Amino acid sequence: MEQQVITELKQLLGRQYVMDRLEDRICYSFDATFRDFPPDVVVKPGSVEEVAAIVKLAGQYNIPVTARGAATGLSGGSVPVRGGISLVLTRLNRIIEIDAANRVAVVEAGVITEDFVNAVNKAGLFYPPDPASAKTSTIGGNIAECAGGPRGVKYGITRDYVLGLEVVLPDGSIIEAGNRFDSEMAGPDWGMLFVGSEGTLGIVTKAYLRLVDKPQAKQTLLAIFNSLDDAARTVSGMIAAGTIPTTLEIMDNQTICAVEDYLQAGLPVKAEAILLIEVDGNAVSISTQAEHVMKACRQWGATEIQVASTPADSDKLWRARKAISPACGKINPTKISEDATVPRSQIPAMVRRLREIAQKYDLKMVIFGHAGDGNLHPNILSNKHNHQEMERVEQAVEELFKAALDLGGTLSGEHGIGYMKAPFLKWETGETGFAAGQKLKAAVDPQGVLNPGKLFTA
Amino acid sequence: MEQQVITELKQLLGRQYVMDRLEDRICYSFDATFRDFPPDVVVKPGSVEEVAAIVKLAGQYNIPVTARGAATGLSGGSVPVRGGISLVLTRLNRIIEIDAANRVAVVEAGVITEDFVNAVNKAGLFYPPDPASAKTSTIGGNIAECAGGPRGVKYGITRDYVLGLEVVLPDGSIIEAGNRFDSEMAGPDWGMLFVGSEGTLGIVTKAYLRLVDKPQAKQTLLAIFNSLDDAARTVSGMIAAGTIPTTLEIMDNQTICAVEDYLQAGLPVKAEAILLIEVDGNAVSISTQAEHVMKACRQWGATEIQVASTPADSDKLWRARKAISPACGKINPTKISEDATVPRSQIPAMVRRLREIAQKYDLKMVIFGHAGDGNLHPNILSNKHNHQEMERVEQAVEELFKAALDLGGTLSGEHGIGYMKAPFLKWETGETGFAAGQKLKAAVDPQGVLNPGKLFTA
Repeated sequence: MEQQVITELKQLLGRQYVMDRLEDRICYSFDATFRDFPPDVVVKPGSVEEVAAIVKLAGQYNIPVTARGAATGLSGGSVPVRGGISLVLTRLNRIIEIDAANRVAVVEAGVITEDFVNAVNKAGLFYPPDPASAKTSTIGGNIAECAGGPRGVKYGITRDYVLGLEVVLPDGSIIEAGNRFDSEMAGPDWGMLFVGSEGTLGIVTKAYLRLVDKPQAKQTLLAIFNSLDDAARTVSGMIAAGTIPTTLEIMDNQTICAVEDYLQAGLPVKAEAILLIEVDGNAVSISTQAEHVMKACRQWGATEIQVASTPADSDKLWRARKAISPACGKINPTKISEDATVPRSQIPAMVRRLREIAQKYDLKMVIFGHAGDGNLHPNILSNKHNHQEMERVEQAVEELFKAALDLGGTLSGEHGIGYMKAPFLKWETGETGFAAGQKLKAAVDPQGVLNPGKLFTA
Repeated sequence: MEQQVITELKQLLGRQYVMDRLEDRICYSFDATFRDFPPDVVVKPGSVEEVAAIVKLAGQYNIPVTARGAATGLSGGSVPVRGGISLVLTRLNRIIEIDAANRVAVVEAGVITEDFVNAVNKAGLFYPPDPASAKTSTIGGNIAECAGGPRGVKYGITRDYVLGLEVVLPDGSIIEAGNRFDSEMAGPDWGMLFVGSEGTLGIVTKAYLRLVDKPQAKQTLLAIFNSLDDAARTVSGMIAAGTIPTTLEIMDNQTICAVEDYLQAGLPVKAEAILLIEVDGNAVSISTQAEHVMKACRQWGATEIQVASTPADSDKLWRARKAISPACGKINPTKISEDATVPRSQIPAMVRRLREIAQKYDLKMVIFGHAGDGNLHPNILSNKHNHQEMERVEQAVEELFKAALDLGGTLSGEHGIGYMKAPFLKWETGETGFAAGQKLKAAVDPQGVLNPGKLFTA
């Protein structure tokens, strides 16, 4: 990169917010995936105007700009695969307003998800999206990848809470897209175009987010199954029968064993699957909901059901779910976590396909995830220094995504596409859809300044 | 239009689906607004391939194409203001699938909203959007204008139920945009771009729609107020306190009097406002919800509350709301119904502004609407043959939209923009937003074939 660019960036932002030493560039070269792509320079703007000025400058010099929050992504969306500028949004971290009367919050892109959730909570309301990365990920990152979380089955995912966005377009202009309030609807819903777009069409700097009622009560249950098919059928059966839990998490036998080995919490290591189920709602109906859940579990073959009667009991049931990641790390150092998602009714078929794939490629695979919305997380436990194994992993991953699409599913339930799944995107969109996406990208960003190498420019 | 085009259209579709006689063109020249714009030819394709072929042909000859469903629109979105082809989608009227396990329905654009609602109901599920036009409007039209209805406050509007769309793009290519299932999220949410876009960016031919649980029980209440401000404060106060009714309809004194004059149902003609409130949910909690509503109404000054104890009682309470349109028609022949929407907390201020505007321009105005989401329907009752009055109406409408935007609101809660509000769109988007919209439109539809004269090409 020309030194002139660095000089101009420093003039724009101040020296301390422009970093181009090798050690800085390395720090900003990766996310939670496995490959490193160092940017040429890292910038930390402090306002939307500064973001706009950086994008304009990048356009003049024809340098890629890749926006980034906390870089907790699992598909590589924020990684600057073509170098250039890594634009870090963490200084835009104000919670501008929580408007309880109109149930909308206005936040900057760099706000940490959990900080926002806590602030909403304090205001007596509820922001449901709850990605596993919430403690460190940013709202802007959640929007760019359309993050989800365990509550998706009842409450939906990030896109269901985005009312409107402030966006810096590739030409450096600043627009407000979408709406500020729930019931607004004037013209096409521009705002949604940027949800899940990984900063390829614009850089989200501020969001108007929908808030909902805080549930008065919740109840946690754990159901044990001798057959994974039974557990999977319980998931779709329960929902088809009209009971929508807040969370409906599945863990297969290998996940259970891994966690038990790690926690020694007395998990049922002979069970083929467990479902961790939470219902929430108003205090009057919560026990009825829990009864419906138990009835469904029994109907589709649960051998045992544990019901938490206190918050401490509930935390205990959740401990196993939350220990999955560290437990897997203990087995093998490299955990390849996918989020191929299938229609709920196809969960049993998908689980069978995943098992066959693991066997075919001789890989350790644990299966868990947000079964309620068909968002399974097959995790391949491997070692990235074992090159032969990693080749088999790559083939397995490809086959796994093919299986999800075969079953009417999708490449991404909540992790996005990034550089990891970019080679497969065309399978999902089809040639025409991909060409249309390319056309859209070319129209909005004719120079290809924003996050090149992702989505429709991969 | 060249005869050659008509000939080619007839070859494509068959003679009976291409109509260019004056009497046909007049029949397709208007919607529920007031001006007539006859197309040069009316076509009724029977498949998405035929839609695509028509759009391609239009591109070759550079002729405008304006898509149309049942043309019940209240802003003029489906009216061909620049002539050309009126593309009627009513033959695409198949309900392709209602998938209860995955809670998604697949329907063609020309399906009548009510037919769809009834089919979903039969399958034991619920599709909440319920525009007043549901008996005749089509799903495609609902999507093109992002229709709403009285249940918006709890259940949201059409965009909240669109998962994915099949769309014919301006170059005649057919894409599937968005998702088929709730939890899918691969790349930018293309689908949403077409919601509310009035057929300016693509023609929606098929939709994947989200379905939800049918509520087990409902309860209807009517609260009477001596002050419109009290009623308005009740609306925002109730919701801020955490009670979200299914519907929260307001009627001001002039609406009450108009309806009473028409129905003679014993409405409280001295009341300044009534709120018609419905709660729904599970059978266990419904009475608690109703109690919260009553408490809120009393707290903010209701002088009387009527509670329906049977479905017949409930229908009686709803009769007044449903009679508003015919009752207004009895007073004056021309009813100009607007849907300027403000944040819920601004309802009292908006009602005051509306009263001032009516007085300033010496116009009869009734105020009612979906107060729960701030979506007021000020209706000006006038006579389109009184030109002097109509001039005052035009000024009042302009001022009314300015007031809504001043208060942080929007031009459209559910009626869309059409030709009626197109002159005001820039007030809402700002110059930069409008320019961005123009750029998007030019990129997707460089020839400007689709519905010219609307939204960003007005």
